[in-house]
Amino acid sequence: MTRAVVLLSGGIDSTTTLYLAKKKGYKCAALIFDYGQRHRKEVDRASRISRMSGTPYKIVKIKLPWNGSSLLDKKKRIPAHRKISSKKIPSTYVPARNTIFLSFALSFAEATGAKAVFIGANAVDFSGYPDCRPSYYRALRKLAREGMKEKDIRILTPLINLSKSDIIKLGKKLGAPLHLTWSCYSGGNKPCGVCDSCRIRQKGFSEE
Amino acid sequence: MTRAVVLLSGGIDSTTTLYLAKKKGYKCAALIFDYGQRHRKEVDRASRISRMSGTPYKIVKIKLPWNGSSLLDKKKRIPAHRKISSKKIPSTYVPARNTIFLSFALSFAEATGAKAVFIGANAVDFSGYPDCRPSYYRALRKLAREGMKEKDIRILTPLINLSKSDIIKLGKKLGAPLHLTWSCYSGGNKPCGVCDSCRIRQKGFSEE
Repeated sequence: MTRAVVLLSGGIDSTTTLYLAKKKGYKCAALIFDYGQRHRKEVDRASRISRMSGTPYKIVKIKLPWNGSSLLDKKKRIPAHRKISSKKIPSTYVPARNTIFLSFALSFAEATGAKAVFIGANAVDFSGYPDCRPSYYRALRKLAREGMKEKDIRILTPLINLSKSDIIKLGKKLGAPLHLTWSCYSGGNKPCGVCDSCRIRQKGFSEE
Repeated sequence: MTRAVVLLSGGIDSTTTLYLAKKKGYKCAALIFDYGQRHRKEVDRASRISRMSGTPYKIVKIKLPWNGSSLLDKKKRIPAHRKISSKKIPSTYVPARNTIFLSFALSFAEATGAKAVFIGANAVDFSGYPDCRPSYYRALRKLAREGMKEKDIRILTPLINLSKSDIIKLGKKLGAPLHLTWSCYSGGNKPCGVCDSCRIRQKGFSEE
């Protein structure tokens, strides 16, 4: 079996991606980041989903010693009722976040002999983050070929062109535990319902 | 003054790069990584050099929860008396290390409004690490343009085509405190004299 590293945030997309990678026959290891999110829910859900799917996982702890995102800084407000189709990148954008995550994933893959890195990036129902678009992943593949000892680690983004409702359908078909996923940026007892992530989730379930 | 982030390991190359960036008129902030090296000397020297040069600095702590390099794993041996010109990548290679470091540097730069990231990468007197070569930096520049909100952060590698002796000459000319730099991978009281890093350093000083 070919080994793969799957980035797992505990949301719908990464959970579906994990189940898709398993379905494709990869021997998966999940990579979870505890990077100063406003709440622990993401990390807890991702860990539960890993265990439930029988996937070993590693948690990388990162403390960025600078600000720059409302997702990390509790003094900032998470935007509510934002126009999702807006081309403006929202304040929840974390500078270079996916590049940081993916660099750890490449390191993990190479250190353990994995030949693929899966990420549930999506460029259809998303908040306009530049590091979710196909052109970013094309550049990353080139970087990995140039910078790694192992030249054939594939970076796979199987959900990149799907709508949220298609991702939900796919996740259900694969038996992914979508009821355990967490999307809300705020991390209250219940989802806030007004942040981008909650609204994209609701839209996905309503259209599914 | 334009702000710049300078990656600082406490060795000759990054110290010279810091002084070069300052000489070019950048308002610098240094970025130092405590990433599980075999010893604390690198971090201590980098911090001292930052303070001596009047440069504010941040230390990012990383614990990679996997092995994969003799530079991080004390149970592995650091190669001694290796043929430096060998095309084989040595066991001191850390999977995706520069990609991890540079992703944090890009994050720091964007979060603080810096318009440049300096790294003292060198592809002449080096151990053959793939992430020190010009083609890697070309790919990284493309990645940064694709993945960041801020599109005009420059990634600068001013030493990439210099020999170690030329870097030492440049460092001395700039008044860089090369006597404080530390190169040895092993981190004993005195440099071991036989690891790649010690030998490249010795060669540089002997040819200078």
